[in-house]
Amino acid sequence: MSFKFEVIKECSKTGARLGRIYTPHGSFETPIFMPVGTQATVKALTPRDLKEINAQIILANTYHLYLRPGYELIRQAGGLHKFMNWDRPILTDSGGFQVFSLADLREITDEGVYFRSHLDGSKHFISPEKAIEIENALGADIIMAFDECVPYPCDYETAKDAVERTSRWARRCKAAHQREDQALFGIIQGSVFRDLRMRSLEQLLELDFPGYGIGGLSVGEPKPVMYEILEHMIPAMPKDKPRYLMGVGSPDCLIEGVIRGVDMFDCVLPTRTARTGLAMTSRGKVMLRNAPYQRDFSPLDPECDCYTCQNFSRAYLRHLVKAREILAAILISLHNVRFLIRLMEEIREAIRNDRLLEYRDSFFEKYGYNNKE
Amino acid sequence: MSFKFEVIKECSKTGARLGRIYTPHGSFETPIFMPVGTQATVKALTPRDLKEINAQIILANTYHLYLRPGYELIRQAGGLHKFMNWDRPILTDSGGFQVFSLADLREITDEGVYFRSHLDGSKHFISPEKAIEIENALGADIIMAFDECVPYPCDYETAKDAVERTSRWARRCKAAHQREDQALFGIIQGSVFRDLRMRSLEQLLELDFPGYGIGGLSVGEPKPVMYEILEHMIPAMPKDKPRYLMGVGSPDCLIEGVIRGVDMFDCVLPTRTARTGLAMTSRGKVMLRNAPYQRDFSPLDPECDCYTCQNFSRAYLRHLVKAREILAAILISLHNVRFLIRLMEEIREAIRNDRLLEYRDSFFEKYGYNNKE
Repeated sequence: MSFKFEVIKECSKTGARLGRIYTPHGSFETPIFMPVGTQATVKALTPRDLKEINAQIILANTYHLYLRPGYELIRQAGGLHKFMNWDRPILTDSGGFQVFSLADLREITDEGVYFRSHLDGSKHFISPEKAIEIENALGADIIMAFDECVPYPCDYETAKDAVERTSRWARRCKAAHQREDQALFGIIQGSVFRDLRMRSLEQLLELDFPGYGIGGLSVGEPKPVMYEILEHMIPAMPKDKPRYLMGVGSPDCLIEGVIRGVDMFDCVLPTRTARTGLAMTSRGKVMLRNAPYQRDFSPLDPECDCYTCQNFSRAYLRHLVKAREILAAILISLHNVRFLIRLMEEIREAIRNDRLLEYRDSFFEKYGYNNKE
Repeated sequence: MSFKFEVIKECSKTGARLGRIYTPHGSFETPIFMPVGTQATVKALTPRDLKEINAQIILANTYHLYLRPGYELIRQAGGLHKFMNWDRPILTDSGGFQVFSLADLREITDEGVYFRSHLDGSKHFISPEKAIEIENALGADIIMAFDECVPYPCDYETAKDAVERTSRWARRCKAAHQREDQALFGIIQGSVFRDLRMRSLEQLLELDFPGYGIGGLSVGEPKPVMYEILEHMIPAMPKDKPRYLMGVGSPDCLIEGVIRGVDMFDCVLPTRTARTGLAMTSRGKVMLRNAPYQRDFSPLDPECDCYTCQNFSRAYLRHLVKAREILAAILISLHNVRFLIRLMEEIREAIRNDRLLEYRDSFFEKYGYNNKE
């Protein structure tokens, strides 16, 4: 089945909607959180772990896979799904964000970007056409256009130039795209400037992408600024296309994003924080290193259904963290990703029952956001 | 059920026997390989992973758990089984080996050993009574007496003194041991000296332990020397007690050990080598970093039934190793431990069918030992 998006229900009190995305590797309900498998693995988790915790779609990073092991190798393996043994949907970013944030940037021209690998300093050139060639080889179900992502803060002229370039590049990405079984999404830029965001959106709408990424947010700006941009922009986005807020994964931003009409999210947060011993629970964050958990023989999150919470105590997890055991990363990553997936399950259920705002309030209350912020 | 050992069948052509050990946490057949869970976790594997690959009993290290998280904490948790969520049998060593190899040794007296922690330099004292107190708190099904393990090579007088001290300490361990649900094994020392080995054995036999560890081997001596000591000593060991060759886990030593009458083995080898990208397969070792595996899309070991071999290619595993992904350690550890457990399953089947020597020859041929050694 090729790509399709349908709205199942619109929330009567917010911009949220319940939807379903169909891909050649199966369908899933939105709003959705996508765990990130940067180097063709969601760190510390096996594909069966991910299925067990109900991960429906994962993201992989084009930049990283281009550098290592290389896209020709993955093409030879039969594509990314087969290479990493994941038979559900995959989304790949375009490498744009990493080229601008990770690589040693040498030169950006309208043609593309010359950069050096963060791994070994080797020289590379990625253009919109090249990015699509790589993404076509990787074979993800949803692929992203090659964009110019500016940092925050950013002056107006720089942001404006990036919007224009991103639009020109989006057109070239669309022209270069070869595979009908992959849905190519455009990416809206414009930093925190309302008019630039609208201009970026309008220019991309002309290209009629099957979905739209919202890039260049969650890059350091205050959360209220991000929310304000979403509120301004999303009502102008097409209702029949999925909206993907890139790089967002904190529980509050997920809920606030959904309320403003976002359908898709991704973030390394649950796995990255897990490796430092930080867990998200229904009662807020738990930094397992801390002394109070030393003899806490209760589960990490009594409300969680994951393998970690069903079988191990905080005291044991703390021991694993302190002893720098790999099992700490495994068990806490499993829990943290499950926590966000379950959050999205509950959000969808709340939309279905028209009680999303009540859900937000009770989640925030329990999580402790109201006390802290 | 308390501890019991029964011999099911003796090999007609070798010293090997098929047996069964009963413990309060269930029974298992011997000869057995025990994966090592040093810090209350077999590195990179969950308890359910271990059950899936048919691990029947695991080992944990008293020295490490004494230092971190501490035995009082594990006692409070309800014992080691509950703390680490492993409901099958556990064996703990006494800490003797680690005190002599890992710790900064300060002073050894007949009373016990003063040493400094390898973690933080803190001062500690472990005596036979203390070791048993710790092991009683941990609550493993099989516990080992506190012994003096000498390095290799070692002069005769030092080895002799260690034998005498180990015997005196064994007596004190037995006197200090409080829990009838834990089987206390003595440990035979004597380095590579036949007469000292026999003396050590004789002195321990007077104490009538329910099982005997063979310590101080596999510490650097040539394999033929180890085999020769086993051949000399094991015929004098009681037939109705299990014989545990400590710290041995290479495939050839497992098979040769069984042929000479060993019933139990443990080693960190499968998990430690896995973390360097080294896999054991039915056709020999595979160093996954190496270039030939870059585009090798075949399974790690086509004859293996583990999750790794059923779902991933060598090329993918190599990528994970090169990218330093945690999943590399997970998948290769899972395979390596399964490889040794399956080897022991096949060894038991070969004993049952009276074809152990044929099994050894065909295993060695396939593994490539005949070419290399």
